[in-house]
Amino acid sequence: MIAEILSTGDEVRSGALVDSNSAHIAEVLEEAGLEVTRHSTVGDDLAAISSIIKEIGARADVAVVTGGLGPTTDDITSEAAAMAAGTELYEDDSALLSIESFFKKRQRLINPLNKKQAMLPKGSKWLENPVGSAPGFAVRIENCLFFFLPGVPSEMKKMLSEKVIPEIYALCGGFREYSLVRNISTFGLTEAAVNENLLSVINDYPGIKLGLRATFPEIHVKLYARGKDEKKISELLERATGSVLEKLGNRVLSTKGEPMELVVGNLLKSKKATLSVAESCTGGLVSNMLTNVSGSSDYFLFSGITYSNGSKIKILGVQQAIIEKHGAVHEETAKEMAACARRIAGATYGLSTSGIAGPAGGTEEKPVGTICIGLATSDEVKGFRFNFQFGDRLMNKKVFAVTALDILRRELLK
Amino acid sequence: MIAEILSTGDEVRSGALVDSNSAHIAEVLEEAGLEVTRHSTVGDDLAAISSIIKEIGARADVAVVTGGLGPTTDDITSEAAAMAAGTELYEDDSALLSIESFFKKRQRLINPLNKKQAMLPKGSKWLENPVGSAPGFAVRIENCLFFFLPGVPSEMKKMLSEKVIPEIYALCGGFREYSLVRNISTFGLTEAAVNENLLSVINDYPGIKLGLRATFPEIHVKLYARGKDEKKISELLERATGSVLEKLGNRVLSTKGEPMELVVGNLLKSKKATLSVAESCTGGLVSNMLTNVSGSSDYFLFSGITYSNGSKIKILGVQQAIIEKHGAVHEETAKEMAACARRIAGATYGLSTSGIAGPAGGTEEKPVGTICIGLATSDEVKGFRFNFQFGDRLMNKKVFAVTALDILRRELLK
Repeated sequence: MIAEILSTGDEVRSGALVDSNSAHIAEVLEEAGLEVTRHSTVGDDLAAISSIIKEIGARADVAVVTGGLGPTTDDITSEAAAMAAGTELYEDDSALLSIESFFKKRQRLINPLNKKQAMLPKGSKWLENPVGSAPGFAVRIENCLFFFLPGVPSEMKKMLSEKVIPEIYALCGGFREYSLVRNISTFGLTEAAVNENLLSVINDYPGIKLGLRATFPEIHVKLYARGKDEKKISELLERATGSVLEKLGNRVLSTKGEPMELVVGNLLKSKKATLSVAESCTGGLVSNMLTNVSGSSDYFLFSGITYSNGSKIKILGVQQAIIEKHGAVHEETAKEMAACARRIAGATYGLSTSGIAGPAGGTEEKPVGTICIGLATSDEVKGFRFNFQFGDRLMNKKVFAVTALDILRRELLK
Repeated sequence: MIAEILSTGDEVRSGALVDSNSAHIAEVLEEAGLEVTRHSTVGDDLAAISSIIKEIGARADVAVVTGGLGPTTDDITSEAAAMAAGTELYEDDSALLSIESFFKKRQRLINPLNKKQAMLPKGSKWLENPVGSAPGFAVRIENCLFFFLPGVPSEMKKMLSEKVIPEIYALCGGFREYSLVRNISTFGLTEAAVNENLLSVINDYPGIKLGLRATFPEIHVKLYARGKDEKKISELLERATGSVLEKLGNRVLSTKGEPMELVVGNLLKSKKATLSVAESCTGGLVSNMLTNVSGSSDYFLFSGITYSNGSKIKILGVQQAIIEKHGAVHEETAKEMAACARRIAGATYGLSTSGIAGPAGGTEEKPVGTICIGLATSDEVKGFRFNFQFGDRLMNKKVFAVTALDILRRELLK
C-alpha cells in the first residue's frame, strides 16, 4: 500500500521551522508495512492545501496530514479537506464534547475560536486527541484514506500510534507484513565508526536492514526485520541483536533504545544506591537529564551547580588550596568536587564536572572542549579528563554531561 | 516568482533522516524575494524523481533540488532530470575538470564512479562545488529553471548562496521584492489568546502577514512584510511591531526573538546583578537554561538542586520547621528556599522552585502541575503558586522553569 505525507503551515513552508514530523510519520508508516513514496509541504493557503489533497488522493492509498487544526484564523486544513472532498463542514458532537471536556478539566474557559475545531468535513470520522484540544479526523478523498492530525509533535505522535496505526492494520486485513524493529542505544563511537563495526552484521544477516540515527551524542542502531512469518523474523532479529552486542560491547547502553539518563537511573535503583552531583561547566544539564526520569527522587539526592569558585568552596566545601594549586578545571578539583558532593548529601556516589564549554574561556593548555570529571565511591575517588572538538557550547555541555553519566554507568556495571 | 523545493533520497523518504535542507533553502529563497509554495520529497527512484520534476516544471518559475548527485549507483538525479527534460546526458568538460582537480588536490585517486558525476543533462549549465566532488547544474525544464545541488548540507548551503542566488537575482532583473521578518518572543498567553489579541493588528496593517510559532512554552510572533520598496516595508514593519507591543504589553520578552533565558541574562547583566537558584521539581532545568547562554558566569553564581528535604535543610539551610509545617511544596517553603539560596551564595537575587512535575506525587490539594516559586531580593521575599495542566513531566518542568524566570524578569523590569 502506497502512503504519502503532507505537512501544512507557513512556518514549515517558509523554512522558519524544520519539519521533523514527516520523518517520524514516514518511519512509523514504513514500520507498519506501508511504502511511503512522497512527502509534501504547503503553507496555510486554502487553495494550495485543497489542491494537493486532491493530487494525493489520486495517487496514494493512505495519507497522513499534519498541521492547521488549531483554533486560529490561519488554521484551515479542515476547510481545505472539505473543499477537496467536494463537501461541507459540520459540527461533530464527539469532537465538540472532547474540546469542552479538555477545557473543563483544566478549569479554563472555552474560547469561541476553539469551537471551530469541532467543524469536520462531512463523512469523516473523529479521532480523539488524548493530549491536546485539536481533534483529528479520518476521511476518504478520492481513492485514499486521509488521516488529519495536529502539527504539535507530542500530540501527533500519540495519535499516530494510538489512532492511525490500528486503523491502517484494520485496512490491511490479512495481507499484512510484519515489521519488527530493535533500537539499540550506544555511546562512545562516532556514527561512521559504529557503521564500520557493524558491516559484518549486515553481511551475516541479509534479511536485516540497519539504520543509524544520531541523537547526539548517542548513536542509536536500528535493526529492521520484515516478513510474513512473525516468529521467524523475531528470531532473526534476536540473533542480529546478539551480534551487535558482541561487536559494540559496553558501548551499548540499552537494547530497548533507552537513553543514558534512564539507563543510569535504572542501575542506581536496582543497586539501591543514591547519587549527589557537583556541576560546573555542565550548568545543571546532568541534573536536568537525571530528573527528566520519573521516579528519579528515589536515587537523586542533590546537585550543586557551582559556577563560581566561591560557591565551590563555601557551599560544597572544596578546599581552596586545591583550586589555587590546580585551577577550577582539573582532575584533582573534579575529584574534590565529587567527594564533597557525595559527603554533604550522604550519597552512595558523587559525580562532578568541571570544564570549558566555550565559546570563550579556552587556553592553550585547556582549550574549549576540555572536561574534567570526578567520581567518588565508598572506596575511592577517581578523576578523568577528555577533550572534545565540537566547537559549540550546547554540544559541549551535552557531550560533557553524557560522558560523566557514562563514567558512572560503567562503575555501576562493575 | 514561484519557487519549489525538492529533496531526493531514501533516507529522507523513509524518515531515517530529517530533511533540514529544505527549510534552509526555503528561508534563503524567501529572503531573496521568491515565494516558496511547496516542498516535496521522493526516494532514489528514477521514475519518481523524473515525474515530480515534470510536475514542478509545470508549476514553478524556479526550483532547487537536492541529493542524488554522488558517485554511487543510487545517485540518479542527473539521469532523472535528463529524462524529465526529454534529453540525454553528456560529459561536461568543466564538471570533469573540477572533479579531477578535486581529487588531485587531495592526492587521492579518482574512482571511475566519480567520472559519472560529470554526466549532466544536455542544455544544462555546470555549477561549481567549492567544497565537495559532486558538481551541481542548472537546467530549464518546461517553464522552470531548476538548480540541482548535492544533499550534503555544507556543500548545498555554500552553492546555494554563492551560485544559485546570484543566478536568481540575474533572472529577476530589476523586479526583485524585498522580504523582512520581525520575530517577537512572548510568554504568558496561549497561542489562541495571542492570536485573538493580534486580530486588530492584521486588520490595521493589511501589508503585514502574521505567523505564530509555539516554542513551548513561549509563543513567537512573526511579522512578515514584503514589497519592492525596502524603506517602505521596513517602516510598515516597525509600526506593526509597535502595535504588537502595545497589545501584548509585558508579555513580550524580546523584539529580536530572544528566548527567556537570554532576556533574563541580559537584564541581570545590565543591572550588574547576580543570581542564586534553589530548584526542587525543575531538577536543574532553570540552571541549565541560564547556563546555555554564553557569558552567564557573569551573573549566575550557584544553584542547589535540592530534591530531598534533607538536602534542602542541610545544604541550603532551610528551616526544618517550615517544611514540617507547610510541606515541601508550598509558597512559604519556596520563599525560604529563595532566601537561603540568595544568602549562601551572596547573590543579588534568589529564585526557587518547588512543585509536582508528575506523573506521580499529586494530591487533591496539590495536584500534578502545582508549582510554588520564591523570589528573594534585597528588600523582600515573595511567594507564588500556579497550577498547570499539561499532564506531562517534561512539559511541566519546562513551564515551571520559564514561569520562575518570568517572575524574575518582571522584577528586573521594575
